[in-house]
Amino acid sequence: MAETVWSRAAGDMDVPFTASGRALLDRLAAYEPRIRAEAERNDRAGVLSAEVFKGFAEDGIMGATVPAELGGLGVSRLHDVAVALKRLAESDPSAALALHVQFSRGLTLTYEWRYGAPHARILAERLLRSMATGVAVVCGAVKDAPGVVTELAPDGAGGWLLSGRKTLVSLAPLGTHFFVHAQRRVDVGPTRFVVPLVRRDTPGFAVLDDSGGLGMRASGTVDIVFDRCPVPADEILVRAPEPAGGRNDAVLAGHTVSSITMLGIYAGAAQAARDLAVGTAARRSADPPAAVRTLIADIDARLYSLKASAVAALVNADVHNDDLGADPAERGRAMMTPFQCAKQMVNRLAAEVVDGCLTVVGGAAYAGGHPLGRLYRDVRAGWFMQPYTYVDGVEYLSGQALGIDRDNDYVSLRAARDQVHY
Amino acid sequence: MAETVWSRAAGDMDVPFTASGRALLDRLAAYEPRIRAEAERNDRAGVLSAEVFKGFAEDGIMGATVPAELGGLGVSRLHDVAVALKRLAESDPSAALALHVQFSRGLTLTYEWRYGAPHARILAERLLRSMATGVAVVCGAVKDAPGVVTELAPDGAGGWLLSGRKTLVSLAPLGTHFFVHAQRRVDVGPTRFVVPLVRRDTPGFAVLDDSGGLGMRASGTVDIVFDRCPVPADEILVRAPEPAGGRNDAVLAGHTVSSITMLGIYAGAAQAARDLAVGTAARRSADPPAAVRTLIADIDARLYSLKASAVAALVNADVHNDDLGADPAERGRAMMTPFQCAKQMVNRLAAEVVDGCLTVVGGAAYAGGHPLGRLYRDVRAGWFMQPYTYVDGVEYLSGQALGIDRDNDYVSLRAARDQVHY
Amino acid sequence: MAETVWSRAAGDMDVPFTASGRALLDRLAAYEPRIRAEAERNDRAGVLSAEVFKGFAEDGIMGATVPAELGGLGVSRLHDVAVALKRLAESDPSAALALHVQFSRGLTLTYEWRYGAPHARILAERLLRSMATGVAVVCGAVKDAPGVVTELAPDGAGGWLLSGRKTLVSLAPLGTHFFVHAQRRVDVGPTRFVVPLVRRDTPGFAVLDDSGGLGMRASGTVDIVFDRCPVPADEILVRAPEPAGGRNDAVLAGHTVSSITMLGIYAGAAQAARDLAVGTAARRSADPPAAVRTLIADIDARLYSLKASAVAALVNADVHNDDLGADPAERGRAMMTPFQCAKQMVNRLAAEVVDGCLTVVGGAAYAGGHPLGRLYRDVRAGWFMQPYTYVDGVEYLSGQALGIDRDNDYVSLRAARDQVHY
Amino acid sequence: MAETVWSRAAGDMDVPFTASGRALLDRLAAYEPRIRAEAERNDRAGVLSAEVFKGFAEDGIMGATVPAELGGLGVSRLHDVAVALKRLAESDPSAALALHVQFSRGLTLTYEWRYGAPHARILAERLLRSMATGVAVVCGAVKDAPGVVTELAPDGAGGWLLSGRKTLVSLAPLGTHFFVHAQRRVDVGPTRFVVPLVRRDTPGFAVLDDSGGLGMRASGTVDIVFDRCPVPADEILVRAPEPAGGRNDAVLAGHTVSSITMLGIYAGAAQAARDLAVGTAARRSADPPAAVRTLIADIDARLYSLKASAVAALVNADVHNDDLGADPAERGRAMMTPFQCAKQMVNRLAAEVVDGCLTVVGGAAYAGGHPLGRLYRDVRAGWFMQPYTYVDGVEYLSGQALGIDRDNDYVSLRAARDQVHY
Repeated sequence: MAETVWSRAAGDMDVPFTASGRALLDRLAAYEPRIRAEAERNDRAGVLSAEVFKGFAEDGIMGATVPAELGGLGVSRLHDVAVALKRLAESDPSAALALHVQFSRGLTLTYEWRYGAPHARILAERLLRSMATGVAVVCGAVKDAPGVVTELAPDGAGGWLLSGRKTLVSLAPLGTHFFVHAQRRVDVGPTRFVVPLVRRDTPGFAVLDDSGGLGMRASGTVDIVFDRCPVPADEILVRAPEPAGGRNDAVLAGHTVSSITMLGIYAGAAQAARDLAVGTAARRSADPPAAVRTLIADIDARLYSLKASAVAALVNADVHNDDLGADPAERGRAMMTPFQCAKQMVNRLAAEVVDGCLTVVGGAAYAGGHPLGRLYRDVRAGWFMQPYTYVDGVEYLSGQALGIDRDNDYVSLRAARDQVHY
Repeated sequence: MAETVWSRAAGDMDVPFTASGRALLDRLAAYEPRIRAEAERNDRAGVLSAEVFKGFAEDGIMGATVPAELGGLGVSRLHDVAVALKRLAESDPSAALALHVQFSRGLTLTYEWRYGAPHARILAERLLRSMATGVAVVCGAVKDAPGVVTELAPDGAGGWLLSGRKTLVSLAPLGTHFFVHAQRRVDVGPTRFVVPLVRRDTPGFAVLDDSGGLGMRASGTVDIVFDRCPVPADEILVRAPEPAGGRNDAVLAGHTVSSITMLGIYAGAAQAARDLAVGTAARRSADPPAAVRTLIADIDARLYSLKASAVAALVNADVHNDDLGADPAERGRAMMTPFQCAKQMVNRLAAEVVDGCLTVVGGAAYAGGHPLGRLYRDVRAGWFMQPYTYVDGVEYLSGQALGIDRDNDYVSLRAARDQVHY
Repeated sequence: MAETVWSRAAGDMDVPFTASGRALLDRLAAYEPRIRAEAERNDRAGVLSAEVFKGFAEDGIMGATVPAELGGLGVSRLHDVAVALKRLAESDPSAALALHVQFSRGLTLTYEWRYGAPHARILAERLLRSMATGVAVVCGAVKDAPGVVTELAPDGAGGWLLSGRKTLVSLAPLGTHFFVHAQRRVDVGPTRFVVPLVRRDTPGFAVLDDSGGLGMRASGTVDIVFDRCPVPADEILVRAPEPAGGRNDAVLAGHTVSSITMLGIYAGAAQAARDLAVGTAARRSADPPAAVRTLIADIDARLYSLKASAVAALVNADVHNDDLGADPAERGRAMMTPFQCAKQMVNRLAAEVVDGCLTVVGGAAYAGGHPLGRLYRDVRAGWFMQPYTYVDGVEYLSGQALGIDRDNDYVSLRAARDQVHY
Repeated sequence: MAETVWSRAAGDMDVPFTASGRALLDRLAAYEPRIRAEAERNDRAGVLSAEVFKGFAEDGIMGATVPAELGGLGVSRLHDVAVALKRLAESDPSAALALHVQFSRGLTLTYEWRYGAPHARILAERLLRSMATGVAVVCGAVKDAPGVVTELAPDGAGGWLLSGRKTLVSLAPLGTHFFVHAQRRVDVGPTRFVVPLVRRDTPGFAVLDDSGGLGMRASGTVDIVFDRCPVPADEILVRAPEPAGGRNDAVLAGHTVSSITMLGIYAGAAQAARDLAVGTAARRSADPPAAVRTLIADIDARLYSLKASAVAALVNADVHNDDLGADPAERGRAMMTPFQCAKQMVNRLAAEVVDGCLTVVGGAAYAGGHPLGRLYRDVRAGWFMQPYTYVDGVEYLSGQALGIDRDNDYVSLRAARDQVHY
């Protein structure tokens, strides 16, 4: 019965709804011991495990969200993708973040393949088939490096040249293809936002080796640079039919699909921290100190709400994602608003859970090499994941509640801010 | 499709899953304007609206959770009961708390009717039929008044006499029957916990007129006293087959069924506060101050988690409630643990939401007669509702997480504490 | 040594710095048992104790902040006034709020007497002498009732007529004189803000009997109305030399002096709640539950910070208050910014402390007549006390930190908002 | 006037009370630019700057808390020491933590020099004179490595041999002398706690190179090991005259003196984060988003309370520290209780402030090399600093409030727990 599945899912976030979701979970399970064992070393070195991702490719995991017709596992429920990312994040949130990139690309390219413009369909199908065989690893690059505007300019011969620099591109060290958000300056009219596809071997393209952030250090999150990289015209996606600065809440659907499954990553980080702290406290004493009991009750209650909130928003997104007959702008908001409510709470609760776990475990958790120290740094990434950061999320949610008209597209919004990144 | 229903329910807590749940919601809807209009007056006077409950009786609402076979509406899903209580609480949490008493009795008596001892089945059927017609209003009395032990003693002629005093008995001014938790002293062996049924017209019984608490003042929550009230032997339920102080987590299932639907009341109070605050802020300014925007985003995010957590725990309880083949103690814990996680968060988030709403509305919310002032007082009741208070909830949840053996039955636990009420 | 005094004060907020402060504390001590005993009854009835304030008048307490040269006790340190209000609020926050009104008037009129315009000096001296003997009880009325603008208009014969309605005027039932913030419309130029003095027996003046707020119900906080009340020209103070909407941070000094001592009221409410909860928990058990220990440690830590923050801001205000040679706008901000930091934290921490105390005590604290229920309602008033509410405090503090130019005068700011009260 | 100084100190924590305190601040100022410039590099490498500490030694900074009679700067007020550590921590909390070790040793050895047993006085004087000239760098080692008990055993020839391992010893890479808490097993009676002094060149002694914790990575916080290190009998201090497990709250005075100045380190970390975030927000926009304004107001309010709480506890400790005529156990508690209240709040508020600052700055703060990322990791150390951790602080504070008798000595308490470190 559907109810049984759902009820467990709400509190546990561990049970996929579909057979393909279960298949994905099974394939991932084989990698968990290794990923867990290597997590600290990879974090310290700031490197993504190429070996593990090679295995993922061979086992079809890199094609998990590619439709079965194109050779993939066919996981299409956002909920099930998030469940898989949660499980992986319990071993290493960085690895989950990197894998999310490929999963997300599978989901959005499937949409292009089904509903896109003719040239987009062709491009999407080619990439999806290649992802299914584990050959293509497709990254997305949204955020310009500080002080830079990544731009597409005509090469004078009918093609285009891309120049600029993107930051916070996860999975990039292994990426074979990169969808790059860029501005296309035109002689007349407003700037258009376009998304050229850049292949790894394109002249002028480079992946930098600078992954040294506070956390998520083994997710391969680095900068990539473009120095007049040639891009053929038929490998450019147009983001949306509206000019920069316009309002088109229809894009919120795609933004939700791209990013909502990341809630699973933070649920997994919190779960891992909780299990560590409870295990440590249970081993130590049959009569734990008062604060430990209070903290553990709070941790379990918060984790429960975290997972219930994430599942509610994921299921909501799945339902609306299927409902293509709805008004596009309304559908966009109906997906984004619950996602943002859940994201605010998941970000907050996950950080609180991990913080409480450090306090339960005590000084040992602060010393070198303890997984809680890593989780404490990793989990803080949540607030900076798009869409939206905390600051922009407040603008969006209060705008929705109070009926304030604003541009909700974080990509165009950011461009309009002219390099002021919050 | 089931998924559609569930997805909306998780974030909204407004959509019943069953036809009987929808019927209940429809019947309640007719009373909302009146209940809302009278809420402040009833709160000030500290009285329960007898007129409204007379209407409820005539419309079959007082028999909502009585099985259809016995003449009731047959609402059996805990989720749907909570949805109805949420809707009512949006108009007046006190009225919802009072109605919850009758709903809860319907649910637990149905269990007795189906699975109880022979005399309990007979008693339950009689009461349920009478509830369905609106004649019987059945209260429960658990908590002894400070310094009192409510006891059942033999009358020397094969019957029993009940003496003592109970506090915090909601709906009592309208109650026709009262299930009273009592201790039965016996010559040999430990004290037994029993639940005699006391009729309103029993000699020695009185309902006091003392509803003057901080909030929930129109819920008819008062003390009731017993001065050697005669009770026939076949109108005594035995709480559980174990002696006082023993461990029997099987009782946690019944405790969950009795109380989990109250999560709807606090969800409703928070929802009402949110709608008031957002409405006020939207009317005031097209460009609200920074703190108002931040507060409103936080309020909506917290309310979302509150509802998602409540729904997750309610659905979980419904699933396990149906699963009578499971190990009784495991089933009890499987219902209670998610309930307690959700309760901790619902209590906390509901209070935070209402508090934030007062801040948004400002001084006007503090002045006489503003509904937010009432909601602020009402919502604080959540932490004191059984099972468990915050303090006992910490014991339960940390005990579960850490594998600490303890008596989880709040009724026997409280008796053992000898009148130390936390 | 000064250090000894200060160090105790920071953590305890119980020790005045001056002999006059100690004298005030001694005189108040005699009233504490009575005020405490009557607190619940007065709260329920929503009345200010006229008897107690009669005693205050006879004992010179109503002239505590009147300079000794004019017959008063001469308490001039804001810190010492706050210490006295804290002590009184431990018995009843409502009584402390009402007494604060008179104390505040004594402090601001002393400033007028020393530094005001000639007619203001005469008026101030007359009132101060009358306050010292207990005859004059002087209230202030700042906030217009919703939808009303209180205005002063020429009577055509050189005098003035006041019309309008003010809300949230504490101590009003006993007030003999009222300073009323009003707008004076003039033919040419912007509106001026003026403060006419209205005597109780003025034709057209009335004190309403409507004290029914969420809390502080025994503070005599009611509305007052003016129907063409005649006011002589020499009994009108001009608030500030600038037009409405202008910037004059010099007024922040007076706003600080008027209101900062109220921090003592909320410190007292929190202290009373803490002492009740700790006393109850200590009596109940030698081995309290985990959550009780955790809550009590948190309560004591928060209360410590609350008092340390209040004392720091009070001492800072006293130092700058004496420094009349400073730039007036800088002096205003140097007094207001620490006050606002402390106010935000005192409001937050006091509410958290009282809330934690209810949880420690449990259901008994929610039942009728328990002092914690009253303190829970009373302490929530803090966020609405001027200057500023939480919402305006965020504007002020962030404006100061970020160098944003804005009008910081809550009186003119509110008028400019045209009846939009946050 | 004393008041002026104090008032500024409460809110700012920037102004020393004594001339020696000001002299220390002046000498430190010269190093700030360098320390700030090197902070990130040292954090990344996990090394303490030997060059900077060489400069400190040459400039007399390493003898700041040595009495002037013995050649030091003579800074004796705990408040002034904390002000200096705050200033230094604004540049690099790690450097401040390392310097704190030497400052703390100066304060406690001065007490030994004045009031200790004859051999302790001699030892203390010799060390203090050597600290003043910058030759001696004296570390303290309290916490046993997991699973280890550091013990002192007779060498059979009247001397002693120390074996074991200590963890979390800050400043150790530069240490010339180490006071090591150890257990001395004796044939009859309970274990004694003793504190032998180990010189760096002692055979069997080693400083490990393992500073790889979550934060405070440039504080030289490492393990040290002892393999039958010989210690002469006259270089052993006896911690307290009582047996292990006994109660002697007199030791709380020394524990307070040793550790309370660390509050300055966390105040400095929070201050640095605040200044970075406010500076960034002010540069970005004249009309910042709502959440940024709200966050900044909250940050400034919390930082104010943090500093006011720390200053209150420091001044209190200074006053009681001078009061040697008091009952030793009462004096110990009178110093420790406010310290613990302040520590709980400083730890909490400092972490909240830094967290809020990351949110204000946004993704850039999470990227590699941003000082906020380092401060986020550093500030989390506060909860693990002795005495007490959060968990033990709850035991202490609730025990004090509720009159629960317990051993408050974290050193003996920890030993009794037999390697269960919370």
